[in-house]
Amino acid sequence: MNRLQLIGQIQQKKSFLCVGLDTDLAKIPKHLQQQPNAIFAFNKAIVDATKDYCVAYKINTAFYESLGLKGWEAMEQTLHYIPKTHFTIADAKRGDIGNTSAQYAKTFFETLPFDAVTVAPYMGEDSVRPFLEYPGKFTIVLGLTSNAGANDFQKLVVRHTHDDLSLVPSIIEPNRETYLYEYLLKKIAGWGTPDNLMFVVGATKARDLAAIRDIIPNNFLLVPGVGAQGGSLQEVAKYGLNKDCGLLVNASRAVIYASQGEDFEAAATAAAKEYSQEMAGYL
Amino acid sequence: MNRLQLIGQIQQKKSFLCVGLDTDLAKIPKHLQQQPNAIFAFNKAIVDATKDYCVAYKINTAFYESLGLKGWEAMEQTLHYIPKTHFTIADAKRGDIGNTSAQYAKTFFETLPFDAVTVAPYMGEDSVRPFLEYPGKFTIVLGLTSNAGANDFQKLVVRHTHDDLSLVPSIIEPNRETYLYEYLLKKIAGWGTPDNLMFVVGATKARDLAAIRDIIPNNFLLVPGVGAQGGSLQEVAKYGLNKDCGLLVNASRAVIYASQGEDFEAAATAAAKEYSQEMAGYL
Repeated sequence: MNRLQLIGQIQQKKSFLCVGLDTDLAKIPKHLQQQPNAIFAFNKAIVDATKDYCVAYKINTAFYESLGLKGWEAMEQTLHYIPKTHFTIADAKRGDIGNTSAQYAKTFFETLPFDAVTVAPYMGEDSVRPFLEYPGKFTIVLGLTSNAGANDFQKLVVRHTHDDLSLVPSIIEPNRETYLYEYLLKKIAGWGTPDNLMFVVGATKARDLAAIRDIIPNNFLLVPGVGAQGGSLQEVAKYGLNKDCGLLVNASRAVIYASQGEDFEAAATAAAKEYSQEMAGYL
Repeated sequence: MNRLQLIGQIQQKKSFLCVGLDTDLAKIPKHLQQQPNAIFAFNKAIVDATKDYCVAYKINTAFYESLGLKGWEAMEQTLHYIPKTHFTIADAKRGDIGNTSAQYAKTFFETLPFDAVTVAPYMGEDSVRPFLEYPGKFTIVLGLTSNAGANDFQKLVVRHTHDDLSLVPSIIEPNRETYLYEYLLKKIAGWGTPDNLMFVVGATKARDLAAIRDIIPNNFLLVPGVGAQGGSLQEVAKYGLNKDCGLLVNASRAVIYASQGEDFEAAATAAAKEYSQEMAGYL
């Protein structure tokens, strides 16, 4: 699915909700845990229950890998079950030297035909390029993440690089210093276009979104952290929306575990519907 | 395998060679490509051919994931085939928010019982902690990587953090500025001990190893980049060895593809032996 098609889906549904399939065998309803393929059975039910209210699904690969072969099989089955009308994201946070990143790109764009994959930026340009080279696919690079540890390195103030000893220019306004994540967003934005590049910005950092929008006005942002992590959808919309919407706001636990009882499907529908109705008000 | 056992293996073999199993179906000998389980057949032969000259094997997960289910199966089989005398590393470069990193730790320490996994640091402390919490296992965090892109962010000069406005102290000597990767090494070293924490430092950055050893004198370093990437083993040994050895130098393509013909096993043995003999001279 390309950018215009994604924007079309958002306009049609008046929703920019992404449902995160962080499916944990220990947390799905008891009556499903006994099934031979419980993870896929649960995901199938969640997709059916939420697809009218969301435009994207994000599969958190960690939850599948931890189950070994059975997990990868369930991931594959889930991906193929998601309707073609929905944007699919492998939340895999991969990244390595060029020839290895090329293998990861193959994994999540060919072997498992996702629309997008999340990528970690620490190893620089040649670790990101192999993902960007896939026509019609999206690379979603970590910018400012939703967790407490985001402050450890992402909010370091940077002066200049090893190769270029001129000071890092203030990106936003004079006399303001530049954070690592801002420098990184600006630099990486130049490696791709809004048609193949998105960024992860945590909802828990919503007030930073205004400054982020000055750096990358046109790229879509994947925004986790609403729901279980406590981010505010209202603030995300206020500071993050652009002329195309430009947001995919992800909720995982708050939707898929809205109830852990036999009514989990109705509860997931209700949670997704509530998010999408709030989103419609902001669009 | 714990640190003392690893040091014992290094002393016994007079080698600190790690063989990287970046096994690519397109690059293994033609006569093996037709086999139903070609990847495992190749890895088995390579392990048999090199085990006397190396102390560790590093499985680059990307090359297995790109094959889907068959690849994960071959990774599992390979891991179980490696002798218990050898230290096993999942080169997976994972890292995510806490509850997700916990799933990755489960993947590579329980589901696939590796001794160690490589972890990307950008998301900070809570993304690394879940790996460190496994007793008897090692977390290998990216420090300064071997690729060209290492200069993009890792060599940014940092001033201070968002939370602490005092200047980042010069780590090595007065009037010397601090690179992001140095700050990161120093900070992360405090989250673990040499008994559960190692760092990746590329061999192509060998001259930086002296400064790195001032920051982390006691941690083992996993050093890729010798061989195909052009790093010098002599320089790595000169600047990187510590009293316990403290190095695992990885060679992948230079060993496993030393020949792509029917003599690949003998060629791999010869390449591994040559590395280990050079290493013996430095120990």
